[in-house]
Amino acid sequence: MTAINFPDVDYGARIDRARTEMARRGLDALLLSVGSDLPYLTGYEAMPLERLTMGVITPTDSTLVVPQLEAPRVVDRGCFDVIPWAETEDPVGIVQGLMGGATAAIGAQTWSLFLVRLQQAAPGVTFSDATDVMKSLRTIKDVEEIELLRRAGAAVDRVVGRLRSMRFSGQSEAALARQVMEMTVEEGHDVATFHIVASGPNAASPHHEPAGREIVDGDCVVVDFGGRFGGYCSDTTRTFHVGEPTAEYAEAFSALHAAQLAGTAAAGPGVVAEDIDRASRCVLAEAGWGEWFIHRLGHGIGLDGHEDPYLVEGNKEVLQPGMAFSIEPGIYVPDKWGMRIEDIVVCTEDGRESLNTSPRDLAIVE
Amino acid sequence: MTAINFPDVDYGARIDRARTEMARRGLDALLLSVGSDLPYLTGYEAMPLERLTMGVITPTDSTLVVPQLEAPRVVDRGCFDVIPWAETEDPVGIVQGLMGGATAAIGAQTWSLFLVRLQQAAPGVTFSDATDVMKSLRTIKDVEEIELLRRAGAAVDRVVGRLRSMRFSGQSEAALARQVMEMTVEEGHDVATFHIVASGPNAASPHHEPAGREIVDGDCVVVDFGGRFGGYCSDTTRTFHVGEPTAEYAEAFSALHAAQLAGTAAAGPGVVAEDIDRASRCVLAEAGWGEWFIHRLGHGIGLDGHEDPYLVEGNKEVLQPGMAFSIEPGIYVPDKWGMRIEDIVVCTEDGRESLNTSPRDLAIVE
Repeated sequence: MTAINFPDVDYGARIDRARTEMARRGLDALLLSVGSDLPYLTGYEAMPLERLTMGVITPTDSTLVVPQLEAPRVVDRGCFDVIPWAETEDPVGIVQGLMGGATAAIGAQTWSLFLVRLQQAAPGVTFSDATDVMKSLRTIKDVEEIELLRRAGAAVDRVVGRLRSMRFSGQSEAALARQVMEMTVEEGHDVATFHIVASGPNAASPHHEPAGREIVDGDCVVVDFGGRFGGYCSDTTRTFHVGEPTAEYAEAFSALHAAQLAGTAAAGPGVVAEDIDRASRCVLAEAGWGEWFIHRLGHGIGLDGHEDPYLVEGNKEVLQPGMAFSIEPGIYVPDKWGMRIEDIVVCTEDGRESLNTSPRDLAIVE
Repeated sequence: MTAINFPDVDYGARIDRARTEMARRGLDALLLSVGSDLPYLTGYEAMPLERLTMGVITPTDSTLVVPQLEAPRVVDRGCFDVIPWAETEDPVGIVQGLMGGATAAIGAQTWSLFLVRLQQAAPGVTFSDATDVMKSLRTIKDVEEIELLRRAGAAVDRVVGRLRSMRFSGQSEAALARQVMEMTVEEGHDVATFHIVASGPNAASPHHEPAGREIVDGDCVVVDFGGRFGGYCSDTTRTFHVGEPTAEYAEAFSALHAAQLAGTAAAGPGVVAEDIDRASRCVLAEAGWGEWFIHRLGHGIGLDGHEDPYLVEGNKEVLQPGMAFSIEPGIYVPDKWGMRIEDIVVCTEDGRESLNTSPRDLAIVE
C-alpha cells in the first residue's frame, strides 16, 4: 500500500473526465474498489480486505464509502464526499442507495463477492466491466506521470548496474532476490513489488518464483523486478550468465537482443499494438527461436504493473503519445534455459523513449 | 506469493470435501481464482494478474486453467488436470466449456472483470459467492495447520521481544516498520505481509500507514504486524510507550488489557461469535471507553490474514474446536492517542489456546 499524494494532481478534473466517458457510454454509475482506478480518481487506495471500500461516481455526485476504522486514512481532496460505515452496517446497501440508474460499470479488480452482493441488492441494474472507461483516462500519461515512470526506470537501472558487479555463483535464487528487493528500495522506490530470479533450467519458466536453488557456474540467470516509485511502477528484465555461455546460448541471445531492439524501433504514434508484437516476433522466428517465445511482447504500465495497452496479437489498438508499455521478448527452452530483455518504453509525439537504458547485452558475472 | 507445499496435505481429499459441500448446496461448479481458496484445494496460488487462472471443480472433474507461461509453476498433485492457455486464446471460453450445469459459486476475491465476462458467456448460469462453501472447509483447521499458526505466532512473539529492548525515539514510523518487516523474515516467516507502526496521534487510526513522522518522547506506539509462515498467517499487536504514560493513558490501558483477557476467556467451543465480541466490549464500556472501540473484536485467520469466523455483533456462528481468530480490542481517541492488544487464539476441545504469549503489558521503551 503506497499513499499517492501528488499535490499537483487535479482529482476533480479527472473525475469530470470520467463523467464525460460515462455519458458517452450511457453509464449511470461508476463503482471502483481495490486496484488503481480509485486512487487515479481520488488519491485514495482501498485496502484489499473483506471490508468494502468503494468510490461511487454518478453524473452529479462522487462519494467514497469506506470502513469507519479506515476513514482517518482518507485525505480530503474537495471533490468527493466520504461515507464511513460502522462494523454493523451494510456497505453494499449504502452503495446501492448511492448508485441510482440502470447501468453501472464496476472496477476490474473489485472482489466478485461484492459484485454478487450488489447484483442481489439491485437486480434491475446491468453491470459491466469498468476497464474501458478507465482505460480511456489512464493509458495516456501526462508529463508528471511520465516523469515518475522515468525516475522509476532510472532507479531500477541503477540496481542493474550494481547487479552486474555482484557475485552470483554460490547464492540461492531467494537470497539474490532479497538483495534485489533491498536495492530497489535503496535506489528510491516506495516499495519493491516483485522479483523474479530464475537460474539455469528455472529460467525457462517466465514467472518463476525464486527458491532454494543455488546458482552455479554455467547458469543463465533471468532477473525481472520492479517496484512503485511515487505510486508509479517500474519493471525491467536483464539476463546474466555465470561465466561464458555456450555458442548456442550466445547465438540465441543475439537474436533476442535484435528482437528487443526491433520491437522498440517499431513502437511509435499511430502504430497498431499487435504490429509491434509482430515486429519483434518475426526476428525470433527468422532466427529459428519463434516457437520458444511463448508470451505477448508487452503490457502497459502506470499505477498498475500490468495495464492497457497490451502488445499482443489481436489487439488493434493504435498507440498514442503518452502511452507507456514494456517491450520484453523472451526465449524459453523447457528444462534447459531461458532469457528475456525488458524495457519500459513511452510513445512520444515523434517516436519513442526507452525509460530503461542499462546495458542490454548478456552480462557475464562470476 | 508463497509456494504452499506441505508434502502431507491430501489435496484430493480436500477436493472431495468441496464436492460434498457443493452437492449439499446444489452447486454444479466451483470456480476459484486469486486468494487462498485455490491453494487450499490444489496447492497452487494464482498470480493476481490480468491473465485468468481458475480452478474449475465439478462433481466429476477438477481442472486448473492457467496461463501457458505460468504452467511451469504448477505442481502436479495427481488430483486435477491442467489446461494451459496461450496468449491469443480466450480463458473465459475455456472455463465456460468446463463448467456445465446451471449454478456456479465463484471465489470471493476473483476479479469482477472475470465474473462479468463469465456472466456474458454463460447467461443461463446463476452465480453465487463461494465464501460459504469454502468457509465450511477452511474455518476448522487440522493439527498441521494449527501447528503452522503456532509457529508463526511464536515467530512474531520473538520479534516483539526484540522490539521491547529497542530505542523508538528519534526513529521515523517508516524506519521502525522496515525493521519490523526485516525481523519478521529473520524469525522464520516466508514473507512479511503488513506492518502498522502508528505513533502519537496517528495511533488513533487503526489502519494507519507508517510514514515520516518521527517518534518522540511521550508517544504511544501501536505496532501491528505479521507475515506468512509455511503459507499460514501471523498477526499480533502490542502497544509501546516512549517514557512513562499519563495517568489517563495508563488507566485506559488497564481497561484494554482486561478487555483483551475477557475476550480470550470468553472464547471456547459452543460459544456464539458475537458473544465473545460483547464480552470484551462490555469491559471497555464499563470503564467508560466504549465509544472509542470502533471496530469488531476479531477475525479468523489461516491461509488468509482475515477470514471467517468474524467476531462481530450480528454473527451468530458457533465456535468449534480448530477455529482460529484474533482477539484485538482497541481504544482510539481521535487526534490524541490509540492503543490495541491482539493475540491469535485457537478454539480447542475444552477451551482455547493463545498462540501469542509475548507480554501484553504496556511496554515502556526509550
